[in-house]
Amino acid sequence: MVVYGIDVGGTTVKLGCFDENGELLRKDSVATDLSDRGARILADTAEKIRSMTEEAGLLPRDIRGVGIGVPGAVLPDGTVNCCPNLGWGVVQAARELSDMLDGIPVRIANDANAAALGEARKGAGKGFSDMVMVTLGTGVGGGVIVHDRIVQGAFGAAGEIGHIHVSDTDTEQCSCGNYGCLEMTCAIRGVMRLARKYHLDGVQSPKEFFDLVKTGNKKAQEAAGEYARALGKGLSMISCVIDPEAYVIGGGIAAAGCILTDMVKEYYRQYAFHTSKETKILPARLGNDAGIYGCACLALE
Amino acid sequence: MVVYGIDVGGTTVKLGCFDENGELLRKDSVATDLSDRGARILADTAEKIRSMTEEAGLLPRDIRGVGIGVPGAVLPDGTVNCCPNLGWGVVQAARELSDMLDGIPVRIANDANAAALGEARKGAGKGFSDMVMVTLGTGVGGGVIVHDRIVQGAFGAAGEIGHIHVSDTDTEQCSCGNYGCLEMTCAIRGVMRLARKYHLDGVQSPKEFFDLVKTGNKKAQEAAGEYARALGKGLSMISCVIDPEAYVIGGGIAAAGCILTDMVKEYYRQYAFHTSKETKILPARLGNDAGIYGCACLALE
Repeated sequence: MVVYGIDVGGTTVKLGCFDENGELLRKDSVATDLSDRGARILADTAEKIRSMTEEAGLLPRDIRGVGIGVPGAVLPDGTVNCCPNLGWGVVQAARELSDMLDGIPVRIANDANAAALGEARKGAGKGFSDMVMVTLGTGVGGGVIVHDRIVQGAFGAAGEIGHIHVSDTDTEQCSCGNYGCLEMTCAIRGVMRLARKYHLDGVQSPKEFFDLVKTGNKKAQEAAGEYARALGKGLSMISCVIDPEAYVIGGGIAAAGCILTDMVKEYYRQYAFHTSKETKILPARLGNDAGIYGCACLALE
Repeated sequence: MVVYGIDVGGTTVKLGCFDENGELLRKDSVATDLSDRGARILADTAEKIRSMTEEAGLLPRDIRGVGIGVPGAVLPDGTVNCCPNLGWGVVQAARELSDMLDGIPVRIANDANAAALGEARKGAGKGFSDMVMVTLGTGVGGGVIVHDRIVQGAFGAAGEIGHIHVSDTDTEQCSCGNYGCLEMTCAIRGVMRLARKYHLDGVQSPKEFFDLVKTGNKKAQEAAGEYARALGKGLSMISCVIDPEAYVIGGGIAAAGCILTDMVKEYYRQYAFHTSKETKILPARLGNDAGIYGCACLALE
């Protein structure tokens, strides 16, 4: 028996076929068809699952289940409530995909939450039943695992780490409509704002920003300190709520590596409640595959 | 069969005898003996359990289990790590109490977490599987319930709501050693600081403070706004982490009632992520009995 883990993104749908221990057997992908408000995405996905199964010499009845991660809010009953990047409004995606696959059980989660489950079960967070994944990219996303399970939230908003209020003085509005959100400092846009604030002329990307920090440039180091302070402060707040065993840091900006995690640790320790200063802060391990791993774990539950 | 819920405080140990549906049958208490670093507290508790059982015409074998809440950190393996108010250091309280009761199963939790479980199962949070209780008193305590269970935390610090960092400008140090903690504004000490800051001469207690707010006193209303803003902001941060269905507000300060919860709701909505602006904010229902109810629920698990 196999399971499929499916990570639906705005550009491609990634598919992984896994054995019953959650080990990856093969991967494939299909372009995300955004026409007609994403109406064909699920059918294309079902078709790809069928062809991958056939190529592996397996039959449809060998599929134990499917887990699917989507870039939007998933309510407690499994309803997808708006995926702007796919053109979706309210969609019963799990039920529709299951119907297309002759009733094979399909479980669904938000993509960041699924990635967190993947890292928790098969990546950097392996062995931890309570952990938080933070993804530093276009936004600051996150996924919260408590009691070894995804915390979805009453409104599908658990793990919206990027919108924790960390600044009373930031006057630029976040895309969510609020002010002072963590992602205004720690997402790509935030890094570029810091580069401008500290007059780091010529810095065009987070990579160039952290490369400059690594050269020992004083202004860049100060700017990186402001970045790490905001993130460390944000993580300290999370610890006062659920006190996880570990934070796993992923996403494009995390490619900066140790220099980033070391600075974040320092500020985390400064703000954290005294009992929780030793929480682990680890780099993610599964990269872009975290989502399919997590969805496979969902399918195996 | 019955279970006991035991709430160990610095002044009294409260005991409740419950039926197997978690309904309270009878209550009693015993003074907390703080001599010899609290060495006799557990033996006194075991003795009281025996006498209550006998008075009810029951036998020791009619006791299905005991749940006990203690005012200190409880680690994931059940070790109590320091209860300053009892004089306890590291104590295996659950095992010791079980030994004193001829092996009856004993489960243990932090007292604030146990109270949260009580409100979640039998009080204002009934029907919610994900909720947070906030207790406004000498400190700002809390308990977090996710997937219908207490979140204890890797270092026993889940629910330390009072130490969420909410101010970058507060220069007075919190008892925990940090600066800008929520409880510096929202615990009793915080209310008294606000009374001084807004020159509310003559205000001697949180009750007098909120009584003045109710009379329509402008300065008092401004001060209460600052109080409610800090608490609303803190709750909005919690929602970005676990997005609970409800917050239940208890503790002495919460006796101020609707005027307080209404103001907190207003600021919560201002800071909350857009999907989570309708989270319920409710007054606690079980008062000082929340702890024994929660401990009984633990014993029934």
